[in-house]
Amino acid sequence: MNEFLRAHADKITQEAIAAVLPDEAVRRALIGMRLTGRVRLVAAGKAAWRMADAATRALGDRVEAGAVITKYGHVQGPIPCCRCFEAGHPVPDGNSFRATEAALALVSGLTAEDTVLFLLSGGGSALFEKPLVPPEELKDVTARLLACGADIVEINTIRKRLSAVKGGRFAQLCAPARVEAVVLSDVLGDPLDMIASGPACPDSATAADARRVAEKYGLRLSEKARALLDVETPKRLDNVRAQVNGSVRLLCAAAASACKALGYRPVLLTDLLSCEAREAGRFLGSVARTHAGCGEALAFIAGGETVVHVTGRGLGGRNQELALAAAPALSGLPGAAVFSVGSDGTDGPTDAAGGYADGDTAPALAAAGVSPDAALADNDAYHALNAVGGLIVTGPTGTNVNDVAVALVRG
Amino acid sequence: MNEFLRAHADKITQEAIAAVLPDEAVRRALIGMRLTGRVRLVAAGKAAWRMADAATRALGDRVEAGAVITKYGHVQGPIPCCRCFEAGHPVPDGNSFRATEAALALVSGLTAEDTVLFLLSGGGSALFEKPLVPPEELKDVTARLLACGADIVEINTIRKRLSAVKGGRFAQLCAPARVEAVVLSDVLGDPLDMIASGPACPDSATAADARRVAEKYGLRLSEKARALLDVETPKRLDNVRAQVNGSVRLLCAAAASACKALGYRPVLLTDLLSCEAREAGRFLGSVARTHAGCGEALAFIAGGETVVHVTGRGLGGRNQELALAAAPALSGLPGAAVFSVGSDGTDGPTDAAGGYADGDTAPALAAAGVSPDAALADNDAYHALNAVGGLIVTGPTGTNVNDVAVALVRG
Repeated sequence: MNEFLRAHADKITQEAIAAVLPDEAVRRALIGMRLTGRVRLVAAGKAAWRMADAATRALGDRVEAGAVITKYGHVQGPIPCCRCFEAGHPVPDGNSFRATEAALALVSGLTAEDTVLFLLSGGGSALFEKPLVPPEELKDVTARLLACGADIVEINTIRKRLSAVKGGRFAQLCAPARVEAVVLSDVLGDPLDMIASGPACPDSATAADARRVAEKYGLRLSEKARALLDVETPKRLDNVRAQVNGSVRLLCAAAASACKALGYRPVLLTDLLSCEAREAGRFLGSVARTHAGCGEALAFIAGGETVVHVTGRGLGGRNQELALAAAPALSGLPGAAVFSVGSDGTDGPTDAAGGYADGDTAPALAAAGVSPDAALADNDAYHALNAVGGLIVTGPTGTNVNDVAVALVRG
Repeated sequence: MNEFLRAHADKITQEAIAAVLPDEAVRRALIGMRLTGRVRLVAAGKAAWRMADAATRALGDRVEAGAVITKYGHVQGPIPCCRCFEAGHPVPDGNSFRATEAALALVSGLTAEDTVLFLLSGGGSALFEKPLVPPEELKDVTARLLACGADIVEINTIRKRLSAVKGGRFAQLCAPARVEAVVLSDVLGDPLDMIASGPACPDSATAADARRVAEKYGLRLSEKARALLDVETPKRLDNVRAQVNGSVRLLCAAAASACKALGYRPVLLTDLLSCEAREAGRFLGSVARTHAGCGEALAFIAGGETVVHVTGRGLGGRNQELALAAAPALSGLPGAAVFSVGSDGTDGPTDAAGGYADGDTAPALAAAGVSPDAALADNDAYHALNAVGGLIVTGPTGTNVNDVAVALVRG
C-alpha cells in the first residue's frame, strides 16, 4: 500500500465527515436564528438524538420542552427538558406513533410568538408518523405501489395524504407558531419535500394528482383512504423557515477543502452520483489512470449514493465495491488512489465505512490469491479489501448524508 | 430538443472525428519522416486502404510497391503501385494468409538503406497473420484459453509464439531495412504490443512466461506448437520507429478544442473509459446535473470504449445506451446535454454513430410512451432515441479509435 496516499485518504475522510456531523450542522444553523416566545423542540430521524443534544447544549434552558424520536439503540442518554423515544425504522411501529403523538401535543396551543425548533434527519419518514388509516393499510398501499412500478414521487403523492404529519401537515399543526427547521439531508439534491416526506414543506402534488396515481395503478383503497386522497395538503406555509445544514453537497465541499490543504487541486465531478457502485469505481479508476503523472496533483470528487445489486453471498457495501472495482485500473501506478466512504461510517452490513485502493492493491490481491472480479461477482469486497489493508474504518459517525468518493492523483 | 446544444454536439462530433481520420493521421506522421532507399508500403487493418491511399497521394512515386490488407468491402479503388487485398475479420481466413505472404515477399531482400512504411490499424491481428501451426489449431487454442478465463495478455503470450508476424517478428523479417510504423490505435492506452498483436513491437513476454501460461490452464498443444513456445520472440528491435498518430487520446483532444471554440471550458475526465455503457451515462448525467446553472459553460469529456452486456432483444449500441441512460438525470434542465459517439460512425449493429440526450429527452420519451429503463433493459436504445430525434448519424467514417462522450453544461 502507498502509505502516503493512504494517510491522505484517511485525513480527507475524517475532515469531510467532521463537517457534516449533526452537532456541527445544528451549531451552524442556530447562528442568527430567531427563537422567540416559548421554544419547543421536536427532533426526528436517525440523527435526532445528536441534533437535539447539540441544540440543548447550545441553547441551555431556552428550550422549554422537547420530543426526540430516533431509531432503536440511538438514544445515548437523557437530554434536559426533552423526552427521548426510540422507534421502528425503516417500518414505523407503535412507538413511532406514540412518540409522534407526544411531539404533536408539545406543539399544540402555541401562539404566533412561539417557536418550534424542528430538527429533521434521514429516517424521519418512518420514525415520525401519524397515519390517518390503519397502519396495516398504509403498509399495504406502499407495498402494492412498489410492486406495480410506481416511482417514489408517485408513492409519496399517495402516502402524504394518508398521514397527519407528512406533506407539510406537521408545520400546519404547529401554526400559528413559527417553525425553524434544520435539516440534515440524506436525499440527493436536497429536495425538502422528500426528506422524511417533508413534514414542514408544502406539497406540490394536488388531490387531482393523487387520484391520477391511484387510477393509473388501479389501486384498491378503503373508503376512508379514498376520501383522504381528496383532502388537500398545504400548498403554502408562511410559518416555516427551513435550512439544509448538512448534506452530501457539504460533505463534498469539505472533502475538497481537505484535498486542497494537502496540495491537490480539487475537481468536483458530481454530488448526485447514483449509478452502480462498481461501475462508478471503474469510471473513477480510469479518471485516475488518465491523469496519473500529468504533472499536477488532482483530486476528483464524486458524492452521492451508488447502488449495489446483490447477487452473491459475500460481505461488502457500495463504497467498498466502488474502491475494489477501481483497483485494476490503478494497478502499478505509483501515485494514484481511489477511495469511497459512507458518511454514516457503516457501509453495508459491515464494520467498515468504505474502501481504499491504489496502485499496489491489484498486485497485493493477486499475491493473496484474490481476484477483484470474482470478489465483486460474489459481492465480497469486504474480505478482498481486508486481505490487503484496504478497508476504511471510522466507526458509526452519527450522521447520514450519503457518500463521497475521491480519486487522488499525484503529479 | 434543445436545438442549440444539439448543434454544438454535432459540431463537436464532426471536428473530433475529422482529427482522427486515417488520412489526417498519415499526413501528420509523414512530416519529417526519414524515407530512405527503396520504400515499400505494408498496410494492415480496418483503416488500411484509407491510410495507404493517403500515403501514396502524399508520397507519389516515392513508394516503389505495396500491399494493402483490409476487411471485405473496405477497398475503395486501386492505389498506385500497391496490391489491395480483402480478407477475413475478426477470424482470419485464407485471404488473410495469402495477403500476408504477399506483404512478406515485398519486405524480403531489402538493405539497411531501405524503408518499410508500415501502416497499422485495428483489426490487423486477424487480417495480418501467418500462422506457424495449422489455422484450426490456432483458433482452437484461442477458444480454449478464453473458455478457461485466461486474460488477453496471457492469450497473446501464447498466440504471438504461434505466428510468424506477431510479437515483433514482422519487423524482424524486414531487417536490415528500417520500419517506419504509423499506428491508428483502437486499444485504450495505446499499448503498441497489443494493437494488432504488435507486428513491429518487441514482445516483453518470454518463452518461460508462455510455458507458465500453458501449464496454468493445462493447455493441450501439438508437439509443434509446444516447441514453438520455446522459440524466443524479439526483445529489442533497433530498426523500428513507431508513432501512434491517431487514438482516442487525440479524439478527446480534438473534442476539447471544438468545445473550447464553442465557448465551453473543456475538462478531460478520462481517455480510458471502459465501464458499462449505461452506468457511464448515469455518471455523466449526474455530472451535468450537478454543474447545470453553475455560471460557467463546461464540457466534461470521457473517451474510451464502454461495454454493453446484451440481455434484451432490441437494437442499439454502447454510445446510444450511454446517452439514453443519461436522459433521466438531465430531465428538465434547460442547458445540459450528454452525447456519445463511436469514431467509426457505426455504433453496434445500427446506422447511427451514437446518441444524444438533453433536458427535453426524458419528457419527450414520456410523451412518446417510452420508458428509458425499459428500453435499456431490452437493449433497445436505438428505437427509444429515434423516437425523440436523439440519434447521431455520421455514416461510416473509415477510422476506428474508440469513442468519445461529452457532458455539456451551459452556465
